[in-house]
Amino acid sequence: MNLLDLIVGRPLKSSEERAEQIGAAQGIPIFGLDALSSAAYGPEAALSLLIPLGLMGLRYIVPISAAIITLLIIVYLSYRQTIEAYPNGGGSYTVARFNLGTFWGLLAAAALMADYILTAAVGISAGVGALVSAVPRLLPHTLGLCLGILLVLTVVNLRGVKDAGTAFLLPTYLFVGALLITIVVGIIKTVLSGGHPDPVVSPFLGRGVPAATVQAASFWLLLRVFSSGCTALTGVEAVSNGVRAFREPRVKNAQATLTIIIAILGVMLAGISYLVKAYGIMATDPGQPGYQSVLSMLIAAVLGRGVFYYVAIASILLVLSLSANTAFADFPRLGRAIAANNYLPHGFGQRGRRLVYGHGIWVLSFLTAGLLIVFGGVTDRLIPLYAVGAFLAFTLSQAGMVLHWWKARGVGWLKAALMNGLGAFVTGVTVAVVLTAKFLDGAWLTLLFIPLVMSLCYWVRRHYHNVAVASQCTMPMEAVGVGALPPIAVVPLDRWSRVSRQGLEFACRFSNEVIGVHVEAGEHATLLHEDWERYVAVPLRAAGNPVPELKILSSPYRFVVSPVVDFVLELAEKNAERRIVVVIPEFVEEKWYEYFLHNQRARLLEWTLLAKGNERIFTVASPYYLSTATRQLR
Amino acid sequence: MNLLDLIVGRPLKSSEERAEQIGAAQGIPIFGLDALSSAAYGPEAALSLLIPLGLMGLRYIVPISAAIITLLIIVYLSYRQTIEAYPNGGGSYTVARFNLGTFWGLLAAAALMADYILTAAVGISAGVGALVSAVPRLLPHTLGLCLGILLVLTVVNLRGVKDAGTAFLLPTYLFVGALLITIVVGIIKTVLSGGHPDPVVSPFLGRGVPAATVQAASFWLLLRVFSSGCTALTGVEAVSNGVRAFREPRVKNAQATLTIIIAILGVMLAGISYLVKAYGIMATDPGQPGYQSVLSMLIAAVLGRGVFYYVAIASILLVLSLSANTAFADFPRLGRAIAANNYLPHGFGQRGRRLVYGHGIWVLSFLTAGLLIVFGGVTDRLIPLYAVGAFLAFTLSQAGMVLHWWKARGVGWLKAALMNGLGAFVTGVTVAVVLTAKFLDGAWLTLLFIPLVMSLCYWVRRHYHNVAVASQCTMPMEAVGVGALPPIAVVPLDRWSRVSRQGLEFACRFSNEVIGVHVEAGEHATLLHEDWERYVAVPLRAAGNPVPELKILSSPYRFVVSPVVDFVLELAEKNAERRIVVVIPEFVEEKWYEYFLHNQRARLLEWTLLAKGNERIFTVASPYYLSTATRQLR
Repeated sequence: MNLLDLIVGRPLKSSEERAEQIGAAQGIPIFGLDALSSAAYGPEAALSLLIPLGLMGLRYIVPISAAIITLLIIVYLSYRQTIEAYPNGGGSYTVARFNLGTFWGLLAAAALMADYILTAAVGISAGVGALVSAVPRLLPHTLGLCLGILLVLTVVNLRGVKDAGTAFLLPTYLFVGALLITIVVGIIKTVLSGGHPDPVVSPFLGRGVPAATVQAASFWLLLRVFSSGCTALTGVEAVSNGVRAFREPRVKNAQATLTIIIAILGVMLAGISYLVKAYGIMATDPGQPGYQSVLSMLIAAVLGRGVFYYVAIASILLVLSLSANTAFADFPRLGRAIAANNYLPHGFGQRGRRLVYGHGIWVLSFLTAGLLIVFGGVTDRLIPLYAVGAFLAFTLSQAGMVLHWWKARGVGWLKAALMNGLGAFVTGVTVAVVLTAKFLDGAWLTLLFIPLVMSLCYWVRRHYHNVAVASQCTMPMEAVGVGALPPIAVVPLDRWSRVSRQGLEFACRFSNEVIGVHVEAGEHATLLHEDWERYVAVPLRAAGNPVPELKILSSPYRFVVSPVVDFVLELAEKNAERRIVVVIPEFVEEKWYEYFLHNQRARLLEWTLLAKGNERIFTVASPYYLSTATRQLR
Repeated sequence: MNLLDLIVGRPLKSSEERAEQIGAAQGIPIFGLDALSSAAYGPEAALSLLIPLGLMGLRYIVPISAAIITLLIIVYLSYRQTIEAYPNGGGSYTVARFNLGTFWGLLAAAALMADYILTAAVGISAGVGALVSAVPRLLPHTLGLCLGILLVLTVVNLRGVKDAGTAFLLPTYLFVGALLITIVVGIIKTVLSGGHPDPVVSPFLGRGVPAATVQAASFWLLLRVFSSGCTALTGVEAVSNGVRAFREPRVKNAQATLTIIIAILGVMLAGISYLVKAYGIMATDPGQPGYQSVLSMLIAAVLGRGVFYYVAIASILLVLSLSANTAFADFPRLGRAIAANNYLPHGFGQRGRRLVYGHGIWVLSFLTAGLLIVFGGVTDRLIPLYAVGAFLAFTLSQAGMVLHWWKARGVGWLKAALMNGLGAFVTGVTVAVVLTAKFLDGAWLTLLFIPLVMSLCYWVRRHYHNVAVASQCTMPMEAVGVGALPPIAVVPLDRWSRVSRQGLEFACRFSNEVIGVHVEAGEHATLLHEDWERYVAVPLRAAGNPVPELKILSSPYRFVVSPVVDFVLELAEKNAERRIVVVIPEFVEEKWYEYFLHNQRARLLEWTLLAKGNERIFTVASPYYLSTATRQLR
């Protein structure tokens, strides 16, 4: 117990909830890591599609960035409104389910789940990938490192939302600070130099500017650039699901958090695209020698390769690998919301010792581990896919908000509805574009996962309904009373011992018909017959009590449990009006590891009887303790 | 159940044992794979130490081989006699324990266990390593392939010894056939050419003969060459442990199997060393480009690179990776022998559905998997180590045999004892040499493992002794009879349902003092109070029966199980002379996967009560079935 306390922290009282709630300062690293870190790969993803255009491609970067930032603002405004409308947590699932119906809600939920699992796996393996390419000696341990980080994230999140926020505070603000400094210094230099700054370190050091291979951009290419850049928007969803994690006034706190995240992200995206154009920085092909990331070139161009450069690059790597944490922050909350409607096991709605939804954390952890193991820790092929889930959820959420405004039709509803409608349309188009462009690369996997999860949800709901109906009881208790038609007792035993004696004595206290059952699997039977006569039959006969019968069952296949089960079932059938109580004498060890030294037949017998039995068959665990025995012997 | 039958085969009756027993034809692949496959790496290991001597080194190969083959014959004769002396399985453990005492027996056993785990891991990863270097695309899946082969070996061995023999028949005989053909053809060509045959494919094609860097061999070098070559002897032990697997006359069958294995191995070792010298083949450095194994060069030199060459090489790879199977054949039998003396859990002595010692197979499989996972499927660094265990066991076994002859002193005992003494001395020296040469390379790991296993054995024995003493019973049963001082019943319940009704009715049948216990963890409590009054109190009061009490327990930390456990323990303490029966109402699902939808508090409560309770606390599983409920509702 102390070890557990050390790892995940002491248990928290339900009444300590308020102390666990967070403000905006912790909310940003918890819910914003995914969104903010996307500044590191969104522009890169867009720019690398422009490589064939050479320096000519740069002319498109500012308008496309403007479009993405506009979309970001639309999505932001929509979620800001959503937080206010659904202060108990209003992610895409809640909004879509309320306004569009259950099917669309579950569709959004499944899409988000796919997104979070992929976010976790891709985030971790991106971080490890960067580390491994810096220290090639670690290459054979890629998977181990991935799983190690996953374990750390799991434990930190199990410790509770506040601890998670505190742990990720420093890297997040380091990352944001480094990028903002770069942008501010870069803009000042650009303005002072009249729009044509001299890079401190030339972006294409020693390689020359990549030549253009294509003359002009097609509309399709620009569409793909736009949709790649949109990966920068994933993670914006997170805050809206986590409103309940904030302290009062929670709507205000959540909105403030979202506003700050979006503002920083917007400034970073705008600044990066402006400076990329000003410094003439183009993406390089990651598959080719001399590859360097856009951010690395940008920081070097603005501030040179000093200490600042290395601190900034390190913070980028750290934040990338920690971006997986957003999934850990949000997936359990999404799970809780779905479980509250009976569409997921109720365990998802239970808060563990640290007031977190432990089930969700574990399930996410296992699914992510599975994905990492299957792909050996190298998940870069999955990167394009994980925008699908996020954008599908955006689309449904915003379509839901359109209906929300329509239903209420308050002041200014048309403007709000139009804005959300525009958002739904644009994100919907993005989904279609990403799906079309990436279907064969693996987007079909997401398309397979989503209906699977949805069927699971429907099945869970149906099962809970059946159980509720079946166990509902409006029958009063039967007043039978003690001693009316006592049950038949069956006591399986291996040999005569203090353990079996304890079980038999218990059985004789509530039944006049006790049957000892022994499975013939060695040379014990004769010995047992003698002991039975001496220690059971003789004293009970002398006292005038009924004498238990001893039954020997044969077992040609050496099974020990199934002959006993068959005997009990047959007995129950023969005595249709009687209850059968199977008293299972058990030797209780002092230490858990001592159980490896004994077979677990008692457990197995109990489970098999439960599974194959009926309402008239009860099993009793009759324990005998090694500690008591040694005490008695002294 | 059908799926299990398909994978590991239908259960076998104990009386079917004879049909499962094997003859020499199956005995060779089962117990001989390890020994025979060592022809593929033993000479290689010896020759690679001679690389610094260049072609001059070849002059030492024939005398060293002669020494190794002599040692092989000594070990063979010793084990042949052991089989006859210990027809129930007489491995090093049995022989050492009988003749030298328990400590030496356990030392031999632990050494052999280390050897078998290493054999399994090294064999599998050697096979996969060869496959991966042929198909580099599989490199990232090294560990997966290793674990896959391990799983196949586990399943095949769980299917029973006969199936294992049949499965490995073809590759074994293919390997033996290919090597013997090469040797015979090579010898004929050598004799016809007057001792200087022309290779079909020159061994050093396109690379030239490696130059000598050292002039003469030191005694220490020759000793190391000898001890490296001795790895060819590992696996000879296997037959002596497995005598019981053979059909009658089992001693004769086992001896015949051992004779054939040793004869083939001897011929192969002699033939390879003769031809290596005749064709002037030297080992090449595996770390250098252009590396080729000695056998590959030899086969190409004798018969060219035709179809035969590729079949032969494929059979070598296959046999190398299957050589792990000898560990699977022998480890479980060793485990049984140790468990029979109470030094390992008794489970090792139980034969499963296919009459094999399943526990041993699983334990070996898990330990091997652990080793493979820790080393990422690349275990070549472990190769030098695994001779330590085998040779330590040889030494102890032969030392034991010396005492065996001395005790009996029958006809010709001195000759036999001298031969075993020589064997013990030589293998003992080999252990010392290997340990000295390889201590820092990792032999210390084996030295750590052996005392660990031995301590475990002693601990197990002590535990079984304690349990036997503590549970031994010479007290007759107390004749109390039905109804005398009935127990107090405790029924934990969440809400009023058919499930809790069933449990309460059962409790009221044997006790006048029933306490319903509810843990406050939601809004159920008020509802439960109302239901309790209506469905429990009113009808029982009307019938004049005692009315059960309802106790509400608070739970600030949201734990549900521990408040109930605390309540029961306190109740037991307050009523020191009474028994407490905790009736746990359980909802039994129809399908196992439905259990994921419900928390397993009933199980957890039962376990915690068992662990923390005492002899006066009994738990009853009171089942309610969904299937019954749905039937009743119709």
